[in-house]
Amino acid sequence: MIETSPTIPAERYGQRLAAAQSLVRDAGLAGVLIGVGADLEYLAGYRGLPLERLTMLVIAASGPIGLVVPRLEAPGARACPVVAAGAVEVIPWDETDRPADLVADRLTAGGRRLGARDRVGVSERLWAIHVLALQANLPGVTLESATTVLRELRMVKDVDEIAILRAAAHAADRVVAQIAGGRLVGRTEHEVSREVRERLLAEGHDTAEFAIVASGPNSASPHHEASDRVIRSGEPIVLDIGGLLGGYASDTTRTLWVTGGDPAAGPDPTFLHLFALVRAAQAAATAAVAPGVTCERIDAVARDIIAAGGEGDRFIHRVGHGIGLETHEEPYLVAGSTEPLRPGIAFSVEPGIYHDGRYGSRIEDIVVCGSDGPDVLNQSDRDLWIVDG
Amino acid sequence: MIETSPTIPAERYGQRLAAAQSLVRDAGLAGVLIGVGADLEYLAGYRGLPLERLTMLVIAASGPIGLVVPRLEAPGARACPVVAAGAVEVIPWDETDRPADLVADRLTAGGRRLGARDRVGVSERLWAIHVLALQANLPGVTLESATTVLRELRMVKDVDEIAILRAAAHAADRVVAQIAGGRLVGRTEHEVSREVRERLLAEGHDTAEFAIVASGPNSASPHHEASDRVIRSGEPIVLDIGGLLGGYASDTTRTLWVTGGDPAAGPDPTFLHLFALVRAAQAAATAAVAPGVTCERIDAVARDIIAAGGEGDRFIHRVGHGIGLETHEEPYLVAGSTEPLRPGIAFSVEPGIYHDGRYGSRIEDIVVCGSDGPDVLNQSDRDLWIVDG
Repeated sequence: MIETSPTIPAERYGQRLAAAQSLVRDAGLAGVLIGVGADLEYLAGYRGLPLERLTMLVIAASGPIGLVVPRLEAPGARACPVVAAGAVEVIPWDETDRPADLVADRLTAGGRRLGARDRVGVSERLWAIHVLALQANLPGVTLESATTVLRELRMVKDVDEIAILRAAAHAADRVVAQIAGGRLVGRTEHEVSREVRERLLAEGHDTAEFAIVASGPNSASPHHEASDRVIRSGEPIVLDIGGLLGGYASDTTRTLWVTGGDPAAGPDPTFLHLFALVRAAQAAATAAVAPGVTCERIDAVARDIIAAGGEGDRFIHRVGHGIGLETHEEPYLVAGSTEPLRPGIAFSVEPGIYHDGRYGSRIEDIVVCGSDGPDVLNQSDRDLWIVDG
Repeated sequence: MIETSPTIPAERYGQRLAAAQSLVRDAGLAGVLIGVGADLEYLAGYRGLPLERLTMLVIAASGPIGLVVPRLEAPGARACPVVAAGAVEVIPWDETDRPADLVADRLTAGGRRLGARDRVGVSERLWAIHVLALQANLPGVTLESATTVLRELRMVKDVDEIAILRAAAHAADRVVAQIAGGRLVGRTEHEVSREVRERLLAEGHDTAEFAIVASGPNSASPHHEASDRVIRSGEPIVLDIGGLLGGYASDTTRTLWVTGGDPAAGPDPTFLHLFALVRAAQAAATAAVAPGVTCERIDAVARDIIAAGGEGDRFIHRVGHGIGLETHEEPYLVAGSTEPLRPGIAFSVEPGIYHDGRYGSRIEDIVVCGSDGPDVLNQSDRDLWIVDG
């Protein structure tokens, strides 16, 4: 069953654009330049195409906001509610134009020439080829990350965004259960990974972004994806899957142990010990989520439990990352981040332990900081899934 | 039926790296810095994760080649044949390190400090956040596009690359036939688009990158993707689909006309006229492909036919783009490009005509320049697909 997907109300984008322009002024920037990607989608409700042709939202500190787009994409851009509402003007360019010129023109539409004392923000994922072209067109101007403006807006999710994230999480939960209940022994990781992608789409995702199937010794590599290794009985599988549903990301991890139906092929005591540590760390870190608690504190809660169990050296990554229009976004839950959680901040909680060359385990939920504690979006069983496979 | 996928032999990567380092010297660069993406995959056979954590191949003009990776991705990086063969050294960084420092160190491993007379190439799709960090770590050094080095290597495909592109094209052809033979009337573009993605995966693609289903008036927008519009009888659908199979891209477009089984709901004379022009232009541009013919010439051949038919203003995009590890890559077949075709260059040939607000049509094949003419990878019928839907 596919749940009806909630969506972002059209008028929200105009509010976000106005807030962004205000933050541009607060930050003392001459403007921000937003290429194709989540920042553009967040601000303008426009997805664009991540291609070599430049698409760029130009928000100067004051004045009208422009969207520079290749002419053949102009119809799609004009269909955006923010354009229809007059909040954004579409500026098309032709195949033989130099679009960076149009961006520079729009940025200086107020008439003042930008110089060495001016700072302009660019979206973090803008391609190098566009960054270099803009630098050539804006001599002397300092380009910096636009994240000072964007992170404040994007980090705190509103109720509609949380509703979509929840629908995405539930869809991913269903796929985990389907895979865990299906055949695994004798299939390659690639085959299972492809099935995960197909099921993510069948459960309502628009795209299947990743489908990590890490079996046996591969489970000791946190970012292993999938290989031609054939899954056997008597070994774990770390299943870490996600995609985009209604534009928002799902990302969940469960650890399976495949017995092949043989009671003697269950997990050994070492694995049960490390899994219990991961389980306890994940539960405690999640329970620690509340407004005012820092990101590094959530990481430390998980890390302390795993270290106390003697496995501290084998928890080799941060405990989590923000999530929203992107699978990984601000804030990052890592040592050194004193960012305090606030209601509406959404992120993963995903400790893991990895015994190099042997096996590993990870559990991951998406959690939203509520007004008085965690709102855990994923709902599938967090215990070790002991399955026949 | 899924064809057995050909692959790139492991030893090819070492040859590519050596060629790249030689080209770095020829170009007078101090080095090139290659982030996650097709350039990295091409050179090192390493895909990496397109995340905020920096992964970077560092090829200085001389000396050993380094791959800076987040520590948790080091196992995957070490599994690359080029690393096992000793051609690339893995340089892991920890969650609290500044990876741009490691890149700068490796670039200057020869001992010489880089300064204002030095130029360093960066991969075109490297994210702005990484570009800005590198600029801060390499003060005075001029960053420029690494494409001077990469385009020469990547543009001309070898026999193994062409075999994979052909397998990808055939898989996409099968999906076109499946969609054209299925139900269309009464379904939304989104529903059909999702089916396209599922079928691309079922036919052996690793990822379904795009699935444009542009019905009725939406077919007049070249880069329309898919909407909630319900498909009706008596209208065209432009189906433009593709994904990655064995790492290489498919990309094909066919135009359907949906009758709903009603003989009276066939295409009108205006549509038949514009389709005939597109068909003739696509055939002539393809036939013009041969070594020494320039990219702009292929574009002009298609454009002249469409202009002679009175529709020149409605062919609003270039005739094609290179294809390989990326859906769009060098060379671009556009007015102004005097790049001569050479055997092994692979690209799309995809003229279209768009009557804004009413309808449009496009036909697209992937073509490889052979030693004496075109090698057309797509094999599905190029005529108007008149279907019941």
